[in-house]
Amino acid sequence: MAPTSDGFHVYDTTLRDGAQQEGLALTVADKLAIARHLDELGVGFIEGGWPGASPKDTEFFRRAQTELTLHNAQLAAFGSTRRAGTKAADDPLVAALREARTPVVTLVAKSHALHVEKALRTTTDEGLAMLRDTIDHLRSEGARVFIDAEHFFDGYRYDPKYAVEFVRVAAESGAEVIALCDTNGGMLPNEVADAVGEVLAASSAKLGIHCHNDAGCAVANTLAAVDAGATHVQGTLNGYGERTGNADLVTIVANLELKRRMKLLAGNGLQESTRISHAVSEITNVPPYARQPYVGASAFAHKAGLHASAIKVDPDLYQHVDPSLVGNDMRLLVSEMAGRASVELKGRELGYDLSSDREAQTRLTDRVKELEARGYTFEVADASFELLLLEVLEGARRRWFEVESWRALMDARGGEVALAEATVKIHAAGERHVATGEGNGPVNALDAALRLALCAAYPVIDRFSLVDYKVRIVDTGHGTGAVTRVLIETGDGSGETWTTVGVAANIIEASWEALVDAMSFGLLRAGVEPVPAKPTE
Amino acid sequence: MAPTSDGFHVYDTTLRDGAQQEGLALTVADKLAIARHLDELGVGFIEGGWPGASPKDTEFFRRAQTELTLHNAQLAAFGSTRRAGTKAADDPLVAALREARTPVVTLVAKSHALHVEKALRTTTDEGLAMLRDTIDHLRSEGARVFIDAEHFFDGYRYDPKYAVEFVRVAAESGAEVIALCDTNGGMLPNEVADAVGEVLAASSAKLGIHCHNDAGCAVANTLAAVDAGATHVQGTLNGYGERTGNADLVTIVANLELKRRMKLLAGNGLQESTRISHAVSEITNVPPYARQPYVGASAFAHKAGLHASAIKVDPDLYQHVDPSLVGNDMRLLVSEMAGRASVELKGRELGYDLSSDREAQTRLTDRVKELEARGYTFEVADASFELLLLEVLEGARRRWFEVESWRALMDARGGEVALAEATVKIHAAGERHVATGEGNGPVNALDAALRLALCAAYPVIDRFSLVDYKVRIVDTGHGTGAVTRVLIETGDGSGETWTTVGVAANIIEASWEALVDAMSFGLLRAGVEPVPAKPTE
Repeated sequence: MAPTSDGFHVYDTTLRDGAQQEGLALTVADKLAIARHLDELGVGFIEGGWPGASPKDTEFFRRAQTELTLHNAQLAAFGSTRRAGTKAADDPLVAALREARTPVVTLVAKSHALHVEKALRTTTDEGLAMLRDTIDHLRSEGARVFIDAEHFFDGYRYDPKYAVEFVRVAAESGAEVIALCDTNGGMLPNEVADAVGEVLAASSAKLGIHCHNDAGCAVANTLAAVDAGATHVQGTLNGYGERTGNADLVTIVANLELKRRMKLLAGNGLQESTRISHAVSEITNVPPYARQPYVGASAFAHKAGLHASAIKVDPDLYQHVDPSLVGNDMRLLVSEMAGRASVELKGRELGYDLSSDREAQTRLTDRVKELEARGYTFEVADASFELLLLEVLEGARRRWFEVESWRALMDARGGEVALAEATVKIHAAGERHVATGEGNGPVNALDAALRLALCAAYPVIDRFSLVDYKVRIVDTGHGTGAVTRVLIETGDGSGETWTTVGVAANIIEASWEALVDAMSFGLLRAGVEPVPAKPTE
Repeated sequence: MAPTSDGFHVYDTTLRDGAQQEGLALTVADKLAIARHLDELGVGFIEGGWPGASPKDTEFFRRAQTELTLHNAQLAAFGSTRRAGTKAADDPLVAALREARTPVVTLVAKSHALHVEKALRTTTDEGLAMLRDTIDHLRSEGARVFIDAEHFFDGYRYDPKYAVEFVRVAAESGAEVIALCDTNGGMLPNEVADAVGEVLAASSAKLGIHCHNDAGCAVANTLAAVDAGATHVQGTLNGYGERTGNADLVTIVANLELKRRMKLLAGNGLQESTRISHAVSEITNVPPYARQPYVGASAFAHKAGLHASAIKVDPDLYQHVDPSLVGNDMRLLVSEMAGRASVELKGRELGYDLSSDREAQTRLTDRVKELEARGYTFEVADASFELLLLEVLEGARRRWFEVESWRALMDARGGEVALAEATVKIHAAGERHVATGEGNGPVNALDAALRLALCAAYPVIDRFSLVDYKVRIVDTGHGTGAVTRVLIETGDGSGETWTTVGVAANIIEASWEALVDAMSFGLLRAGVEPVPAKPTE
């Protein structure tokens, strides 16, 4: 059964409701990249945003028409029903939904009688007419229409008759599914189960469920609704969302696929979920939550002496499912996430076929594991990974310059902001180059100095620029204490960018390592010949 | 009803099961400090560790006898039943439990028939005898005995007859409560509810529940067990624990107190829960999870335009409970956590009575809010807070030295590790002091240089030493990007330590700020007169 059929729906709202998370700011390019990951995960529906309400979302849907090819999922545009006292066809926000040209439109509407009166300042009859008209209009334009029944559970408690009538009207008007929303996230599972069961008994609608985690029960509430008959689940990657977040879609799907034996995702989506969860967290720059169910770095990690010895007897004693089913690994003390298969896959993505060279795969996997144990990550740092892969294949690091020395100096007078200056000494194209740069911090200063020193030998460097700089303190969890990980994104002015990684106890040293990789990879991409190889130390 | 009575138990296992979390390493002093916070929260029972199995835990119970005065809770020591084929009185681990001298002993025992045979290599009859004997022995020594039935739910599925017999034997032997453990965390709420209901129907035991979050349902599973009749809940602060963690005790209690109208904690514990959750995360140095239900920094934060405008109509539209009930605050965009009450409380802790000076409270609260918005935290940085408080009360910062300038230099040759050197120029006791220090990083070098420069004027500085250094990247969430927060703990050799905070985009600058506060506070504590005040800039 296709995940977009009228069977059981897995509906992702990372790009709309997830983006409401504090501290999360996605560019249009970020949203397109996340949509591709979601499609690969195999969800049925991807809610992309609210066209018309946010210029960024309007732009997302415009670019998606040409730049986004989905293999499994259908794209959904989110919006509200027409305003009171107007025609749906004349409403500018409804027009923005039409113009998003998505196969699915999801309309949010108030199913709480009091909110219709207080927030919309209209009658419940007009509330239902707004719902009916907008569904009619968008269906006549060829869209599949889904409904988000906002504040449904509170509304059902306040006025169950209106809440049920809302569901009936939506279904009779042609909405394919009515997702009951626990908008403020305060429901407990028994309350959700009761309401879903009663509404299903009173209507013939297909029901969905949309939960938030304010009471720590978002996943359980979703499962309770499914047990009571809901056949459409909404959630977000990594549980992103406002306040305590939305229901974590991967946890929901893993529970249903592995514990209820339902098949929900296209392909082997579940086995990709750990990788995709982490890749998306690199895009959002929200640190992955190690304790996240199923996909967290600690989800199958064991430290208790009691456990570790018992695990030798039977690995299933302290793990509820086989971690490979979600693409994760059991870890005892120090073993790391990288596997030979993912290394081979990553190589293939970059255009290197390692499938016939098992020995190279092993060496590369070992290097990646060793580096990951020290705090490196290659999910996003493709450029550093490619330099590493070439080093493993060729037996020596490709180098375009030798670093003689670098230094960074910060100073501050009295209470003033510190100023930074850096000097680098390198050898490139047979000559020694010394250059000094300034900046508002030591990394800017080092970047300026390195670029200046290299320009004489490699004029192409002049086109490179630092696009993004991310720092994270990483606890390697192996008793060696925390280290600093730096990710640097560099561009060459053509729109193409590449990302490199550096790790060290000292943030400046980590940044320097990522800068050296950034320049090296840029020269590799530009087709510049490296200096003759020396064996790897 | 006292929280330690035989009514409803709130049982915390942060110090035992929570400490199994990857990356979490608690000293005995940390454990004593956390126990005091738990007692203040008002839980009934605090499980302190496993004496005999871990020297650190043995030491914890030894020191607790003289250093820990509990007002609400009883301390519990955790351990296993006697080994097969021995006498309980002769078992060295049972002896360690006796010697911990706690009012409560919690015994873990295998309630899964297959595990008795496979892991303990004995018969189920001997398994039950081990349970009975150990309970008898410890009861005869005067302890209250609780039982953790390990792998209960999997065991109940495998051999329900043995699992129920286990519960009966434990109860008949005098165990006050049998906590059913979902040890591998894979149960879903309906399974937990069914098992608890059936066991209660088949025995007269008082049942407890101990859940892990591997399926994202730890809280819901706990609630399902309570609904089915369990009257003892186990959990940890901030959901710490192995793999995906234990059930979050605060979320459980908040749900039961606020949504089920049960009164569980002593005093006004729930209103202290946000503060205590954050204070404990500073002790563990596990970054607080912003999306944590009830107590997370984002738990009542609103960013959605839809929500923000609706909230003006009715604040309850997008919050499931009043955040003040858990000591948290609603935040729209930029408002911060600090409240006048907590500032006054903090001042009182430090020996300053601000209760009659509302104007000073307001000024201090405003300063704290402003600084917190910039990434500062004062939960642990008492020394920086006290310097700030004095500044607000006196209208000027107390200073023992003026900084003319500082500089830090890092350099590296080729592929070598970078070396750091720092020079500081200060004025103290009427003279100018210039000193240079070296270190394996810029902060060590600055610390060495500052200490050396100050020693001539203030010989007491020679006793100060850097005890701990913590760095965290903080997303202030206000569009200004991430900053670095440094916490420095300094000691004076007497066992007393103090903590200071610094925040800046540049990690070196943040460290410098914390170092200056560290030396200043040390001089304040040593009774050294500051230089004549200048008004605050």
